[in-house]
Amino acid sequence: MQILIIGAAGMVGRKLTNHLVAKGHLGDRTISRLTLHDVIDPGIVAEASFTVDTFASDFSDANETDKLLADRPDVIFHLAAIVSGEAEDDFDQGYRVNLTGTWNLFEKIRALNVQSGGAYRPRIVFTSSTGVFGAPYPCRINDEFIPAPLTSYGTQKAIGELLLADYTRKRFFDGIGIRLPTISVRPGKPNRAASGFFSSIIREPLVGQEAVLPVSEEVRHWHASPRQAVGFLIHAATIDGEAVGPRRTFSMPGVSCTVTEQIEALRRVAGNDVVRLVRREPDEKIARIVAGWPMDFDPRRALEFGFKAETTFDEIIRVHVEDELGGRAPTTL
Amino acid sequence: MQILIIGAAGMVGRKLTNHLVAKGHLGDRTISRLTLHDVIDPGIVAEASFTVDTFASDFSDANETDKLLADRPDVIFHLAAIVSGEAEDDFDQGYRVNLTGTWNLFEKIRALNVQSGGAYRPRIVFTSSTGVFGAPYPCRINDEFIPAPLTSYGTQKAIGELLLADYTRKRFFDGIGIRLPTISVRPGKPNRAASGFFSSIIREPLVGQEAVLPVSEEVRHWHASPRQAVGFLIHAATIDGEAVGPRRTFSMPGVSCTVTEQIEALRRVAGNDVVRLVRREPDEKIARIVAGWPMDFDPRRALEFGFKAETTFDEIIRVHVEDELGGRAPTTL
Repeated sequence: MQILIIGAAGMVGRKLTNHLVAKGHLGDRTISRLTLHDVIDPGIVAEASFTVDTFASDFSDANETDKLLADRPDVIFHLAAIVSGEAEDDFDQGYRVNLTGTWNLFEKIRALNVQSGGAYRPRIVFTSSTGVFGAPYPCRINDEFIPAPLTSYGTQKAIGELLLADYTRKRFFDGIGIRLPTISVRPGKPNRAASGFFSSIIREPLVGQEAVLPVSEEVRHWHASPRQAVGFLIHAATIDGEAVGPRRTFSMPGVSCTVTEQIEALRRVAGNDVVRLVRREPDEKIARIVAGWPMDFDPRRALEFGFKAETTFDEIIRVHVEDELGGRAPTTL
Repeated sequence: MQILIIGAAGMVGRKLTNHLVAKGHLGDRTISRLTLHDVIDPGIVAEASFTVDTFASDFSDANETDKLLADRPDVIFHLAAIVSGEAEDDFDQGYRVNLTGTWNLFEKIRALNVQSGGAYRPRIVFTSSTGVFGAPYPCRINDEFIPAPLTSYGTQKAIGELLLADYTRKRFFDGIGIRLPTISVRPGKPNRAASGFFSSIIREPLVGQEAVLPVSEEVRHWHASPRQAVGFLIHAATIDGEAVGPRRTFSMPGVSCTVTEQIEALRRVAGNDVVRLVRREPDEKIARIVAGWPMDFDPRRALEFGFKAETTFDEIIRVHVEDELGGRAPTTL
C-alpha cells in the first residue's frame, strides 16, 4: 500500500514516519511507498524497507496537490496546519492553508474518485483539534457538545470536519477526523506557545534544568503522549469506515489532570530533587489564554471504536522517558 | 441608509423588497437606496421613495461581488442559495454558490473593511437553515444541539455560519444568521419540493382546488409564515450586534404542529367543504425524506433577542388569507 503524509516535518509527522518505517506495514497491509510532504523538506529517512519520497512545497497551491496524489495513495494523513496562534495573527495565511489547502486536497481527491468511477476512494485521516470547541464548557465535553469555536484556527478545523463528513457521505473518499488532546510531553526545546509549559515543567526538570510554571497549580488540562498521538493516527487509518456512520470526527481519549497532579506524577517517576526545578512565576496573559481551554472530555465514541490513550500522567511521563531519554529518568541514573 | 438584497428574486426576497418599499425605512433609519440582485433579474419595483437598482449576475463570480458592494451598503441581506435538493444532486453547483459565493462575499467585505481602517463594517443578515442539523433529533432542538448536517446544503450552510461567526468576531463585519422554519403557506403554484405539500394542502383548498397529502397525518413539522420570515429578516437587520456575543446564528421561532393540526386549523378558518379537498395519496419516497426533518425547536435565544413568530397554525393560515387572498377565505366569501 502507498501512504502520503502531509505535514510530515512536524513533531507528530516525524514520529508517525518513524513508526511506519520501523513496522513496514499499516494494519495488515505491507507498505510499498511512503511520500512525505511539508512546506519545509521533511528530510531523509534511513533504512526503510520501501520507497520513501520526500518533497517540499506550498500545500495551499492547488497545482502542488496534484503531485501529491500522482501515485494515488491508499491512505493520506493530513497533518498540515497553520497553528492556532499564527492563524489568529495572520488571518489570510490561516484560511489559505487550513481551509483553502484542505478543501483543495479534498477536491482533488474527489476529481480522481469521479474520474475512476469511484474506484479510487482513499482513507483520509484528518487531524482536527479541541479548538473547534469554545467556552463556556461543561465539566466534561461529550460527543454531543456543540462546536462553536472562538478562534480562526478552531473555525478552520470545524469547517474541515464538515467537509470531511460531506465528502465521505458522498463516497468521494473515506474520511476519519481526530481531535487531538494537547500533546505532552512534547520533545525538543521550550517554545513560546501558551501551552508550552505543560510539557516544559516535565521535560526540563527531567534533564536537570529549571522550568517556569506561569499558571496556578489548580489549572486542569487534557493530555496525551506523542506516542499515543501516533497510535491514534494509525488506528484512524485502519478502522472500518462503514461502521463509523455519518459523524466522521472523534474527540480522542486522553488524561485530564491538574498541574498539581502533573507535578506529583513527576515526583513519583523522578523524585523530589527533580520537582524542585519547577519554578512558579505567574503570567497573567498565559493564565487568561489557558482559562479558555477545555479541561476534560468524555470521548465515548472514540473509546467504543477502539481508540486508546494513557490513563495516568505517570504513564505519559514514562513514555517520555522511554522514547526521548533512552528509558533513564534521573532517579534511575 | 443603503441596503443590498442578494437573492432578491426569490419568494422571501420579493416580500422583503415590498416591505422595505412600503415602509421607506429600516428600524429608525430612512432608506436612500436599495440594490436588488439575483441570478435572474429581480424585476422593476414601482413607486419606491428611494433609488432602486436591480441587476442580475452570477453571485459566485468574485468580480460580480465587487459591483454589489460598490455603494458600500449598510445592511446586506444574503438570501442567495442553491436549494437543498439541487445542492444534493449537483455537488459542484451547490458548493460553488453556497460556499464559494458566500465566502467570496465575506472576503470582499473584509477587504473593504480593512481598506477603510475598520470604518466600513456592515450588518450582514445570513439566511441559514434547519438543514444544518441531522437526525437523530431530540423531541425539541434547543440552541445547544450539535450541527451535524446530513446533506451538502446543510453542510454549506453550517460552514457559512462558522465563517459568519469568525469574520464577525474579527470585526470585519457584523453578522447575524437566522435558521428559517419551513415557510408556510408558500404562495404560488404547487412545486415538486418534498416539503411542498405542507403548503399545498392549505393553499389549494382555499381556492377550491384539490391537494394531495402524501404522508401520514401524524407527521409533525416546523412552520412560519412568509410574513414572519420578512419579520425575522428585518429584526435580524436591526438588533444590537454587540449584545449577541460570539454565537451569531439563531434558530428562529415557529409553530410545531402535525398535519392533523394543520387540517383542523384549516377547518376552523375555512370550513368543512374546504378540508374535503385534501386527498390522501401516500408516497413512500416523500414520507422517507420528511421523516429525516426536524419537528420542533426550543429557540430560546431567538425569543430572548426579540424574534417573534406565529403561535398557532390558525394564525399562519389567516396571514395567508390576508396577504395572498385579499383577506377573503371561502367561508367569508
